[in-house]
Parts: sequence; C-alpha cells; structure tokens
Amino acid sequence: MISLVLIIGQCFSLMPVRGVGHSNPRQVRFTFRSIQVMITLIFLFASSTFNFAMIKHLAKIGVDAKNLVGFVFFACAQSSTVLFFTLAPRWPRLIRFWTRTEMIFVRKPYKMPKPNLSTRVRRAAYAVIAFSAVEHIFYLISAIYSEYRRALLCGAAQNITIPFTFEEFAYRNYDYVFELLPKSTLIGCLILIVNFFCTFVWNYMDLFIMMIGKGIAYRFEQMKMRIHTLLDKEVSESIFMEIRDHYVKLIELLEYVDEDLSGIILLSSANNLYFVCYQLLNIFNKLRWPINYVYFWFSLLFLIGRTTFVFLTAASINDEAKDALSVLRRIPANTWCVEVERLIFQMSTTTVALSGKKFYFLTRRLLFGMAGTIVTYELVLLQFDEPNRTKGLPDLCS
Amino acid sequence: MISLVLIIGQCFSLMPVRGVGHSNPRQVRFTFRSIQVMITLIFLFASSTFNFAMIKHLAKIGVDAKNLVGFVFFACAQSSTVLFFTLAPRWPRLIRFWTRTEMIFVRKPYKMPKPNLSTRVRRAAYAVIAFSAVEHIFYLISAIYSEYRRALLCGAAQNITIPFTFEEFAYRNYDYVFELLPKSTLIGCLILIVNFFCTFVWNYMDLFIMMIGKGIAYRFEQMKMRIHTLLDKEVSESIFMEIRDHYVKLIELLEYVDEDLSGIILLSSANNLYFVCYQLLNIFNKLRWPINYVYFWFSLLFLIGRTTFVFLTAASINDEAKDALSVLRRIPANTWCVEVERLIFQMSTTTVALSGKKFYFLTRRLLFGMAGTIVTYELVLLQFDEPNRTKGLPDLCS
Amino acid sequence: MISLVLIIGQCFSLMPVRGVGHSNPRQVRFTFRSIQVMITLIFLFASSTFNFAMIKHLAKIGVDAKNLVGFVFFACAQSSTVLFFTLAPRWPRLIRFWTRTEMIFVRKPYKMPKPNLSTRVRRAAYAVIAFSAVEHIFYLISAIYSEYRRALLCGAAQNITIPFTFEEFAYRNYDYVFELLPKSTLIGCLILIVNFFCTFVWNYMDLFIMMIGKGIAYRFEQMKMRIHTLLDKEVSESIFMEIRDHYVKLIELLEYVDEDLSGIILLSSANNLYFVCYQLLNIFNKLRWPINYVYFWFSLLFLIGRTTFVFLTAASINDEAKDALSVLRRIPANTWCVEVERLIFQMSTTTVALSGKKFYFLTRRLLFGMAGTIVTYELVLLQFDEPNRTKGLPDLCS
Amino acid sequence: MISLVLIIGQCFSLMPVRGVGHSNPRQVRFTFRSIQVMITLIFLFASSTFNFAMIKHLAKIGVDAKNLVGFVFFACAQSSTVLFFTLAPRWPRLIRFWTRTEMIFVRKPYKMPKPNLSTRVRRAAYAVIAFSAVEHIFYLISAIYSEYRRALLCGAAQNITIPFTFEEFAYRNYDYVFELLPKSTLIGCLILIVNFFCTFVWNYMDLFIMMIGKGIAYRFEQMKMRIHTLLDKEVSESIFMEIRDHYVKLIELLEYVDEDLSGIILLSSANNLYFVCYQLLNIFNKLRWPINYVYFWFSLLFLIGRTTFVFLTAASINDEAKDALSVLRRIPANTWCVEVERLIFQMSTTTVALSGKKFYFLTRRLLFGMAGTIVTYELVLLQFDEPNRTKGLPDLCS
Repeated sequence: MISLVLIIGQCFSLMPVRGVGHSNPRQVRFTFRSIQVMITLIFLFASSTFNFAMIKHLAKIGVDAKNLVGFVFFACAQSSTVLFFTLAPRWPRLIRFWTRTEMIFVRKPYKMPKPNLSTRVRRAAYAVIAFSAVEHIFYLISAIYSEYRRALLCGAAQNITIPFTFEEFAYRNYDYVFELLPKSTLIGCLILIVNFFCTFVWNYMDLFIMMIGKGIAYRFEQMKMRIHTLLDKEVSESIFMEIRDHYVKLIELLEYVDEDLSGIILLSSANNLYFVCYQLLNIFNKLRWPINYVYFWFSLLFLIGRTTFVFLTAASINDEAKDALSVLRRIPANTWCVEVERLIFQMSTTTVALSGKKFYFLTRRLLFGMAGTIVTYELVLLQFDEPNRTKGLPDLCS
Repeated sequence: MISLVLIIGQCFSLMPVRGVGHSNPRQVRFTFRSIQVMITLIFLFASSTFNFAMIKHLAKIGVDAKNLVGFVFFACAQSSTVLFFTLAPRWPRLIRFWTRTEMIFVRKPYKMPKPNLSTRVRRAAYAVIAFSAVEHIFYLISAIYSEYRRALLCGAAQNITIPFTFEEFAYRNYDYVFELLPKSTLIGCLILIVNFFCTFVWNYMDLFIMMIGKGIAYRFEQMKMRIHTLLDKEVSESIFMEIRDHYVKLIELLEYVDEDLSGIILLSSANNLYFVCYQLLNIFNKLRWPINYVYFWFSLLFLIGRTTFVFLTAASINDEAKDALSVLRRIPANTWCVEVERLIFQMSTTTVALSGKKFYFLTRRLLFGMAGTIVTYELVLLQFDEPNRTKGLPDLCS
Repeated sequence: MISLVLIIGQCFSLMPVRGVGHSNPRQVRFTFRSIQVMITLIFLFASSTFNFAMIKHLAKIGVDAKNLVGFVFFACAQSSTVLFFTLAPRWPRLIRFWTRTEMIFVRKPYKMPKPNLSTRVRRAAYAVIAFSAVEHIFYLISAIYSEYRRALLCGAAQNITIPFTFEEFAYRNYDYVFELLPKSTLIGCLILIVNFFCTFVWNYMDLFIMMIGKGIAYRFEQMKMRIHTLLDKEVSESIFMEIRDHYVKLIELLEYVDEDLSGIILLSSANNLYFVCYQLLNIFNKLRWPINYVYFWFSLLFLIGRTTFVFLTAASINDEAKDALSVLRRIPANTWCVEVERLIFQMSTTTVALSGKKFYFLTRRLLFGMAGTIVTYELVLLQFDEPNRTKGLPDLCS
Repeated sequence: MISLVLIIGQCFSLMPVRGVGHSNPRQVRFTFRSIQVMITLIFLFASSTFNFAMIKHLAKIGVDAKNLVGFVFFACAQSSTVLFFTLAPRWPRLIRFWTRTEMIFVRKPYKMPKPNLSTRVRRAAYAVIAFSAVEHIFYLISAIYSEYRRALLCGAAQNITIPFTFEEFAYRNYDYVFELLPKSTLIGCLILIVNFFCTFVWNYMDLFIMMIGKGIAYRFEQMKMRIHTLLDKEVSESIFMEIRDHYVKLIELLEYVDEDLSGIILLSSANNLYFVCYQLLNIFNKLRWPINYVYFWFSLLFLIGRTTFVFLTAASINDEAKDALSVLRRIPANTWCVEVERLIFQMSTTTVALSGKKFYFLTRRLLFGMAGTIVTYELVLLQFDEPNRTKGLPDLCS
C-alpha cells in the first residue's frame, strides 16, 4: 500500500531502493550501483551548478528577503534529495520492522476502518500529485504567456519583431544561469527539467510525510476501535495486557520512524513555513496579466492547503492516540483492572507524535501556535516591504 | 431551559429544527421542508449577492486591511448560517443524548446551585440581546445622523436643498451594492434587513456558545458540590465509583458537544479576534460627529465585553472541573480509597474544555495568551496604519 | 508578623479593618463607620476629580501612548484602593482561617528556618518603603529643581524676575488640574498629598503581595525541611498521612488567599507591566538636567527591581513546593509506602502558586515568558516612538 | 576526565582551585592566596578600566543598539569571571559529591557507551578551542588588514606616508581607551591581552557548560543502556529498586550542579542570545574588504554553531532521560512490578534538565521556542535598523 508512493518516488529516482513493489519486505534492498543513484547524482550536480549561478547572481545584485527565494528553492530540493538518499540504506531495515509490527493489526480482533489504508493513501497521493501538476502547468503557462505578451508589446513599441522562441524564453527567465553557462538550447532544456525535478521533490517530501502519517494513524485508529468494542463487555485482564503490549510496539515503531524521518520533517516544515511567509508577503503585489493573478492565487492556496494537510495528517497520529485514551477512560468500574490503569497512565503521559528532530511535535496545538507566529511575522514583514509595494510595476521592455 | 435561546434562533430561522419548545426531546425533529429552511436559503442568496457586489467593489478600489471588514462581516454571517444549518440535522440526536445525560443530575443526591441553570442562561441571553439591540440602534442612529448632517451642510454649501430620503441614505451607505444592482427602494430595504440579519447571526453564534458553556459548566458545578458534601463524612467506595461513572458520562457529553460545535467555536473565535483587532486599530481615528464617537466606543466595549464573556463562560467548564478536582483532593485519608485515586488521576490528566477543532482549548490561560498576542498584533498594526491616521477626515461633500 | 505591613497600610487608611495589631485574630473586625473609611472616601473623591481633569485635558490635546501615563497612574491607585476596600470586609474571616492553618506549623515537629518569617517580612517591607521614599523624594527634587532652573533661566532671558513659589510650581506641573479647578494654594497642596498617596498605594499593593507570598512560602519551606529530616529515618506511614493532611490544608489556604487576592495581583501585574514598558520606552529620551537623569534611572531601576522582586517572592511559593516535592522523591525504597506515593502524586499534579484570577500563575517560568514578551513590545514601541525621540528637547520657556 | 577542561581554565586563572589534575577529588582545594586569584583580580581591574573608558565614550557619542556591543562584551566577560570566582570555593565540595555519585556508574552492571566520556569531552573541547582560536585570529587579521589598507590608501590620497605601526593600530581600534588613558605601547599591548582574555572567558563559559552537560548526560545514557539490557530478561524487583535509587542519586547530583551553575548558564544564554541577535542584525551591512566578509561570516556561523551546540549538549541530559523512560516503558507485563511503576511515574513527572536559575529548562523545545522568538526580534530590529543600512560605508580617511 505504501509502495505506490514509493514507486512514484522511484520514477524520480528518490530513495534508490530495489524491490519496492514486492509484497515481501525482505526483497527490499539498497544498492549503490543502480540507475537511480546515478540519476540522483546527475540531478544534484546540475542543480548545484544552477544554484551556484544563482548565488553569483545574488552576490552581484545584492541579497534581500525576496530574491533569496530561488536559492532557498534549490537548496531545499537538494537537501531533500540528500536526505532521501541517506534514508535509502536505512529504509529496508525500517520497512521490515514496520511490516513486522503491522502483522499484529491485520489479524483479528483488529478491524479495518473504512476507507481502508491503501485507499486513503492513494487518494491523498492522487490529490497532491494532481494539484501540484496543475500548479506547475499554471506556472509554465503564466511564465510563457508573460514572455509572449512582452515580445509582442515591446516589439510593437520598437517597431521590430521580437522572436518568441524557447531559447528567448529560457534566457529571460533563467538569466542568472546564463551568466555562468553558455547560451544553448540544451542548457535551456536542462534548466526546465531540473526545475520540474525540484518542484517534484518539493511536493514529494510532503507526500511522503503524509503517507507515513496516515500509515501510523490508521493503526492507532484500529486500536481505538478495538477498545471501543470492549466497553460493554466483561473483559479479562489479559486482553488489556495484550493491548498494552501492542501499544508499546506501536510506540516503538513510531519512535523508529521518527528517528529516521525527522530530518525530512524538519526540512519540510521549515520549507513550507518559509514559502507560506514568502507568498503571503506577495499578496498585495501588483501583477501585470490576469493569468499571473490566477497562477499566484492558485499557487498560494495550494501551498497553504498542502502545508495544512501535511500538518493535520501528521497530527492525526496524535489525535487518534488521544481519542483511544479517551475511549479507554470510559471503561466501566467492573472491568477495571490494574492493566487498564497501567495502560491509561502510559497513554496519558506519552507524547505520541511525529517530531521535527524532537524540537517540536506535530500536533494540532502546534499548528495553532505556528499560525499565530506566522501572522506576527507577516505583519512585521508587510511593514518592512511597504516601500517595494508602492513602487508599482517595473517597465515592461527594459 | 436551553429552548429559550433556540426559540430565539428559530425566529431568525437559524437551526431549522422542529419541536424545540417541547419538553420531550424526542419531539425534536429536523426536516428539509420547512419555512425556516426557506428563509435560510433566501438569506444566504441575498447576502451572497451583496457580498459579491462588495468583492467587485473591493477589486475596483484595491483591498487593504481596513476595507476588508465588510467582506469579512458578510462571509462570517454566511459561514455561521451554513454551520448552524449543517448542525440542525445532527441536533436532535445531540439533544437527546444531552437530555439523557442530564437525567443523572436532576435527581438526588445532586443539588441545584443557585441561581439555577435556566435563570443563568436567560440572564445571559437577555443581556447579550439587549446590548446587541442597543448597539444596532446606535449604528443606525449614527449612520442616519451623519447622512442627515451631510445633506444639510453640503446643501447649504452649494446653495441647494439635498433631499434626505431613505433612498439617498441607502445609496450612499451601501453604494457597493448599487454598483451591481439597480437603485430601488425595495433593494434598499432588503439591504437593511440582511444587514440586521447578519448582525443577529453574528451575536447569536456567541450566545449559543455561552448557553452550551453554561449548560455543561453547571453540571460540573453540581458534581463539585456533591464531592464537597462528602468531605466530612465516611463514604463507601461505591459512592466514588458512581461519581466517576457520572464524570465519565459528562466528559462523553462534552466530547460529543465539542465534536458538533467546535466548527462554530472556531468561527466565533476567529471572528471576534478579527473584529477586536479591527476596532482597536480604529481607536485613534478621528470621527466627524460626537454620535459617531458614542457609537464607536459603545460598539468597541460591547465587542470586547462580549468576546471576553463568551470566552470566560466557555472557560468556566474548565474552571469548574478543576475546582471539583481541588475539592476532591481534600478527601481525608480515612475515606481515601482506590476509586478516589482513580478519579483524581482521571480528573488531573484530562483536559476538560470546549475546543476550537482541538486546535486550542477554551481555558482562562488561553485568554491570557491571546490577550498578549492581540497586544503584539495591535502594536505592529498601529505602526502600519500610521500614515492613514494622520491624514485627517476626508472632505464631507466630495 | 503580618500586622506590621497592615499597620503601615492603616496609616494610609487602606483596608479599614480594626484590631490589626492584636495578637488574637478574633479581634480583627471590619466596620463601615471608622476614620479610615472616611479617609478612603475623601481620597477617592479627590483623586477622581483630578483624574477627571486629566481626562478632559487629554481629550483636548489628543491621546497618545505616552501622555496616557498620568491617567493610568490615577486609575490604578483608585482601583487598588477600591480593591483593598472590598477586601476589608472579607479580611477578618481570611485572617482567622490563616491563623488556624498556621497553628500547625508553629509547633513541633516543624522547625523555624532562619531568618524567621517576621524578620523576612520586615526586611522586605523596610527595603521597599525606603526605596520608594527615596524615589518619591528624587521625584520631588527633580521636579522642583527643573522648575527652579526654568524660572531662573527664562527670567534672565526675558530680563524679568520670574518668582519661584510653591504655587507657580504646582500650576506648572499639574496644569491639567487647574484647567478645571480654580488656582489656589490649598488645591496645590491637595494635589501633592493625593500624588503622594497614590505613590504609596502603588507601592503598597506590591508590598502586600510580597508579604502574602513570603507568608505562604515560609510554610512550604517548613514542610520541605520536615520531609528532609525524614530522609534517613525509618518512618511510619502515619507520618506521611499527617504531612499530606497538612499539605492539603496549606493548599486550601493558598486557594482561599488566591480567591480574595487575585484581583489585586492582576492589577499589580498589569500596572507593573505597563510602567516598565513605559519607562523602558523613555530610555533613549533626552532630558534637560543631570538630576532628571538621576531620577529617571533610579526610578527605572527601582521599578524593574520591585517588579522582579514581587514576582520572585510570589513565585517562591511555587519554588518551595517544587523543592519539597523533589526532596520527597529521595525517600528511599524501604520507607516508601502508599501514602508517600499519594503525596508525591498530589504534589506533582497540583500547580501551587498565586494566580492572577487564574489567568496565569505566578511562577518563575511566567516571569521568563513575560520578559520575552516585554522585549518584543519594547522593540515595536521603540520603532513607533522614533519620530518623537529625534525631535530633541522642547523650548524651555515656551 | 573533566580535569582537562578545568586545567585549560586554570591557564587563564578562571576558577582558582588547586589540585584539579589530581585523580583524587579530596586533593581539590580552594585557597585565596594563589597566583590565579591574583591574575583574576588584575584582569578584573584592567577590564573594568577599559569598560569605564567605553562607558565614558558611549555617554559622549550617545548609546544606540549597536555601539552597546563593546560594553556588553566586557561586562559579560567580567560577570563570567566573577561567577567562576564565586564558584571556586564551592567547587571542591561539588566535585567530591559528583565523584561519589559517579562511583556507581563506573562499576558493573553499567557499561561504558562508546565513545567514552573523556573522549567526548576532549573532542568537544578541542573543537571549540580550535574554532575560537581561528575566530580570534581572523578577527586580528581582519582588523590589521583593514588598518593596513587604510594607511596605504589614505596616505596615497594625501600624498604622505602614514606609518603602519602597532601603536597606530591600537590607537585607532581602541580609541575609547586612549580617551581616558595616556597613549603608550604598554597599554596598547594590555588592551590586546585583555581582549584576548575576554574572548577566552567568553568561550570558556560555553565550554564549561558543555562539559558539565556531557558529563551528566553520559550517566543517563548508561542508565538507559542498563534498562535496555533488562528488556528481554526476567528481572527481580530489587534490580528496579536499585535503578530507581541510582536515578534519584543522579537527579540529586543534577540539582546540586544546577544550583551552583545556573548563574553561569543564565549569563551564557543571555550572552549568546544577545550576540546572535546583534550579528544577525549586521548581516545586510556593507563591509569594505573581502577579509571583513570572511571574518564576519566565520564569526557569525561560529557563534550560531557554538550556541546551538551548547544548547543541544545541555539539552542532551533531557533527551537521554526521556529516552531512558521510553525504553523503560517497553518492559513487558511479566517483569512488570510496583517498582517499575514507581520508576516510570517518577521519570515521567520530573523535568530532568539544567536550568537558567529555574526560569527556563534547557531542552530541545526551548531551543525551538527561542529560535521563533529570535526571528521575531530580528524582523523588528532589521526594520528599525533600515536607515543605518542604506547609508553605505563611512568615508575611509575621515
């Protein structure tokens, strides 16, 4: 079920692991000598070159809060690729441990809440991929259309015909690259491909966290349902002993996953936070063409939506664990036993959540706190950016 | 007892539920084919039209932090109506569950703390309704008087008689609507009605949360009183078993209510927060007539008062639960038993409070934290708004 | 021991309670017909008049963040007086309850940590009173000297002799009062007296909280010491039962005190917070004479010192309670018993602290959080105040 | 193992304690009559003189947020020296208590996790010392080179030869000192020495906290490992009793250390926070020579790196204690016993961390919160500093 998302990642050679599609986790192997490793390395090399060009460009024109965005975009995609790359060798062991823990929950007495896990993951994956594809297409259309109108209008103004070719488009939009590299169609193509790659990696990171989040939250939901069915029955102590045992195993899995993934979570959070702030800052900017507005607003809403969605999905682990506790607390006094007490104590004193390197835990409360902080940042930044905003649009044909 | 508030809501066709006045909750039914549903739909349609006119107007003159307020006002009233509308079908089941849980507390050994619940709810309802009516009347007087003086003074200045009719008043105050719709007395009336409706919905939302808050807090208070009477007696373990049982049921009710209502709570909090920030921002603005100042300050104080009151009422659930715990802790060692221990543990590890979609819990501490955050926002916003403030009043007759 | 502070308060007719000096708390009575009540009412009437004059003055010249300070100063002193006045009728009952609870701790096996309570309270009281007296004297010297130099210099500039009389001084410094009231020496004196009164009340509020804080913290310290002596002995369960009983009684006292005093605590915190922010804002202001700088810095440091001191004293209740818990945790396994467990559980799940109407608890952590918030406010406010700061000193003789 | 760091400190006469290198802690003695005490006093006297010169200079040119940095630098180094000096007499007792507690952990059944403690401390110490040395050298090179170029260019511009001597360098860079003291080569040397001393003390404070942090965290790690080995075995209750006993002893040690060191921790945190904010504020400043940029960025990254490192090292105590708890929770039901329960309860309700005078605890969460606060401060400060930033470089030869 998780394999779907992994296979998508494979296409873009993230996480160069073999045998991802296999039903048997023992088949999952990592090897350095694979086509994916090569693609990863090529991507890293190309994007580094472009990023280096970007840094040189920035050093020339002077850094400010806004033109830093290109650098951050590249740097994030690269860090993310590296993090996935370092995750790959640890992945087989993780997935084996995960599968072993999951064994418990695919059998009776655990039920499968509807919609089942693979449907949930698939839906989320499709939605994110579809929206991010639309976003990227809008980006291209917006960029191409702007360039096209520019060529048309500026040509008319100067009484000449400005050719509107792919090369022209690439040279204008990625001028910083061609300050370093020679102008050629090949490099133009390469930029577009690397750019697409980066966009994909960017989205994939979030998708990956979502998948993991849903995978673990589902198990807590199953546990909650099981406890729920016990409410009205007479239950022997051994049942609760078993549940506590499963609970401990689940927490162990969560900690294992958290250890391996929290780097990616930290990067994703920082990344999303930065881009939300950046885009919100542009909200009052004037743009030239309607298609630019369409792209901007779609992009902004997609970004906020995706960020919220990733956060809430990851926080659902915490939600389900708390719900399970609050169901457990309804156990009537006659079936109450020492094991119930232990379980309740354990559940109420453990923070069950994915974390960003233990600096923060992904819970609903954190999202609330972060929203408040983002508003503060935004208010200060908007004030900061006031002079730029009132300047109006730059000359089209300069 | 709750029915009073509901019946008021009925008049404005919020929550189209039948049989609200009945003493028997089984009579409460939801049906799609009712006059209230129709009114709700008409209201939604009319307000959407006006809001659309507002958005067009904003797009023309350019959005800023201040002129957004009309749009937010309409959008809030609409969202609120929709939320109440979606709550209606779930209401009968909720009220039945509630009534069933309350059964426990209307009997001995639970006492009825004075003033009793229905008095408390009624007082709060009357106060909110009275103040909000006064606020709306001030709003109308302030708007009409301003318009009247304008007609008089500007007429005198231009040596003509400017007619002061209802139409003129409506066209001037709601100009954005008439950019979209034809000028007619009927539409003028409709605007006023919809406006009144919106104001009502706006207040009703808070009133509703208050009522729910008081309803549940009262039960915790009863529980606290019962525990208090046990302090000096020798009490058998079964009594505490019973109390814990009731406590669990009450928590279950709270969770049920929270699930159904937290959308409304979230909307109400966001709404109140936005308007408090907005009004505080206007505090240093110059106004033309004394009546404008009277309206502004009454409106501001009413808004802050209502927000604080809603918050504190909702937080009183948490307060009473904590008080009950602190009373329970005084149980002397001789009546101490395992059940007391369990109850104490349960009470001290559960967060008993209404929540905004679990993002935050309505407690006194939150109010303190939010006050601090509002001050930060206000300080930054005031700085932001500095240039507007020093501009002075616009020309009266332009 | 507490009586000292109360007697001081009596001199300024705060808390009109009789029999404060008696060793027997039963002698403490509240009565409406007393000289103190009359003084309180006169003070309230006079200060209200002055504050009304202040408000009129502000309405005329326009409010901003800085000239509001006079109004806040008066309003605080008045609210404080009212709060103490409403505390007075509840005081006898409170002090009787307190004395009853303290009975436990003046006997064996509780020891009296050095320095003993009455010494501690006396020291704190003397320090605060001494410093506040110095501060007030500096204030007077600074104001008089400025006025004196002004008379001298401006007289010289205009070649006339400007008389430097008490009346001139009063009219200049409290001009807002004489916009409302006729100029007369009597009213000039009255202003100075009321001003002195206000300063006293302002400091007394903090002193009172300190005294209460020290009084309760001392009892927790005694408890901690008693537990400490038990560490190496074999102790029977009944001892811990007794300690828990005393602990519960102490908590009950704390809650009682908190209920009656948290209004004063809230006012004191808000007051201190406002004035610290206000004074920090003036830190970069240019002043005319060295004596003004001396007064300003003494006043600022005294204010910050007093605020920190009040906070830390109140927080010491929390500190001592936590220390007691951490000592209790060292109980070795052989004397461990169920009662120890209960006591530890109770101590580790209760928040032992004075509170501001339960909105916040006075702990060291809060102080840390508030320091961070004050810095944020200050940074924003300083930016806000920039234009005023660069203006330089106003003309001396205008 | 700790002795290494202490011996380094000795060289700079911090903590004048004798017998630091001895393996037997009984040999550690404090005495007032030692060469170190004298050096400390001389250093304090010299730096006070320089700081006084600084204050006079500041009073003359007017304080702002930026030129305060020199004063803070001196004041911090002095406070730090005083704190270490007051720690010295308490050190022998502390180190004896520490060694006694450590006795438990150097024996079976505790294992020594690799790399062992002394290696860890040594590595951290070497790294910090190396980097801080490089930073200081860069500082000198940057200052000297700037001065050299200045002499060259300004001399060329004025057609004269400006001598580039040590004296010139000192007079220019530390001009504030020579406003107070006579110009002489000796004093120039002294300034450089005192400056170097200050830099050392500044780094030593952090190094010291790191060492203490690592020392205690290591013990918790050992405890975690021991519990880990018990997971699959049948264990008697007495084992857990022993572990709890050791845990209590470790907490006692931590509290002891925290009491003696939290002054230094508070100073170090405040210091690091201030300098990080200050340096971040300079990030957009224009500098004249490339070497200035190299120094600035190296210095900034070193500062942030060191601050983060100190924080994380101190927070690792908290991390290890939490990990130990989460391992303990995996104890299966068959070896579960009352002692396990007690231990779990104790571990889950105690905050195990070094603190800054109990105002805050050094945990990973705090670091996250502080990062958010620093960003807020930075955003506001940057806005504040805008006018300075756009001014460009001052004239080189003025």
